[in-house]
Amino acid sequence: MSPFIPTARSRLKRGHERGHYDEATIHDILDSAILGHVGYTIDSQPFVTPTFFWRRKNCLYWHGSSASRMIRQQAEGIDVCMTVTLLDGLVIARSAFNHSANFRSVMAFGRTRLVTEEEERNRELDRFVERLLPNRLASLRPSHPQELKATALIAMEIAEAVAKIRSGPPEDAEEDYALDCWAGVLPIQQLIGSPLADPRLRADIAKPDHLEVFQPGSDFSKLMKDFA
Amino acid sequence: MSPFIPTARSRLKRGHERGHYDEATIHDILDSAILGHVGYTIDSQPFVTPTFFWRRKNCLYWHGSSASRMIRQQAEGIDVCMTVTLLDGLVIARSAFNHSANFRSVMAFGRTRLVTEEEERNRELDRFVERLLPNRLASLRPSHPQELKATALIAMEIAEAVAKIRSGPPEDAEEDYALDCWAGVLPIQQLIGSPLADPRLRADIAKPDHLEVFQPGSDFSKLMKDFA
Repeated sequence: MSPFIPTARSRLKRGHERGHYDEATIHDILDSAILGHVGYTIDSQPFVTPTFFWRRKNCLYWHGSSASRMIRQQAEGIDVCMTVTLLDGLVIARSAFNHSANFRSVMAFGRTRLVTEEEERNRELDRFVERLLPNRLASLRPSHPQELKATALIAMEIAEAVAKIRSGPPEDAEEDYALDCWAGVLPIQQLIGSPLADPRLRADIAKPDHLEVFQPGSDFSKLMKDFA
Repeated sequence: MSPFIPTARSRLKRGHERGHYDEATIHDILDSAILGHVGYTIDSQPFVTPTFFWRRKNCLYWHGSSASRMIRQQAEGIDVCMTVTLLDGLVIARSAFNHSANFRSVMAFGRTRLVTEEEERNRELDRFVERLLPNRLASLRPSHPQELKATALIAMEIAEAVAKIRSGPPEDAEEDYALDCWAGVLPIQQLIGSPLADPRLRADIAKPDHLEVFQPGSDFSKLMKDFA
């Protein structure tokens, strides 16, 4: 796939050996996540709002309440930065300086657009449910018109993006490998727990087959990648 | 503890029943995390950078390479927004509209300051290691002067902050509780895995006692809260 061309906005100044500008790497990280942090500016004040997002081709989507400050600003069409971070481990080195983290992250830049066209709106709002919870939509009642009206959908075509990845063992200074000091990695994973039925769930309703993919102990980012 | 006084910057417009402005709630969430997403603006372009951070009293600290773009900007003293999000579960409701997430998040606003005073710098850089990996510092060689020189420390006194929390089962429309539809919560936890020794670790070095707190399967955000 064609790479994103880095400009001053996305080119890494530091740790450039960890930088990636190719679509395959960037899309892979975006698809392994559901939570992003979107940055935007209102009257010179930066804001960062956590939001679930999803991708279609080179476009990111997220939704929110039509009344929220974030949505009202982004509906105008503004420059934003969507950052996605998957923390994979703590890197335990032989010096304080070389301690680090294993992670996969993407900074994606672009301009927002309020999605108003019905076909795109319906397609993507359905996709959000299906991307997070495959085959769930068929078991849900249709959305009410007032629910759809209260929901705003924002799209951002990725203009520029950079991925940053660190993996593997610590990288210590050559002379430090002789030290009497343990070094390695403490992995961190986001895992699914045992489902908790709604206390108000009717006693005759069993957990449906479409939720069986969320086995307790399964890796959430791997599931997200599989479903994307 | 005294509450933060919300202004237009931090007062929630939507979901205000989920908002909290008291220091105890805000500090508790900040202390349960190590990863934050800091938002800042350069020439009208918003940037969001993932970074490890830590708290002392009402001040947040993070560090970076003195040469990085983020640090060079923040060293000037600029307005930022540090957002911290802990994802606790997927809320599976009886309608697409009422699907949600359980989470704990904080948006903290303030102005950055480059820490130049040696006592504060040394104290906080040591604290970062100890806050993440208690009792590790004693097993490490002292930092070299050039390592300290390459490291910049940023501080942000929290001027304003808001926490947002959602927990518990789905909240469906009253008439939807009669539907033939499973509902509940799929919990998500960030867990520690089994430690991976550095392939270059000397064979005579065992994993030290101070890392025993990171038992495989332990909840990372609970550990962070305990260590804070």
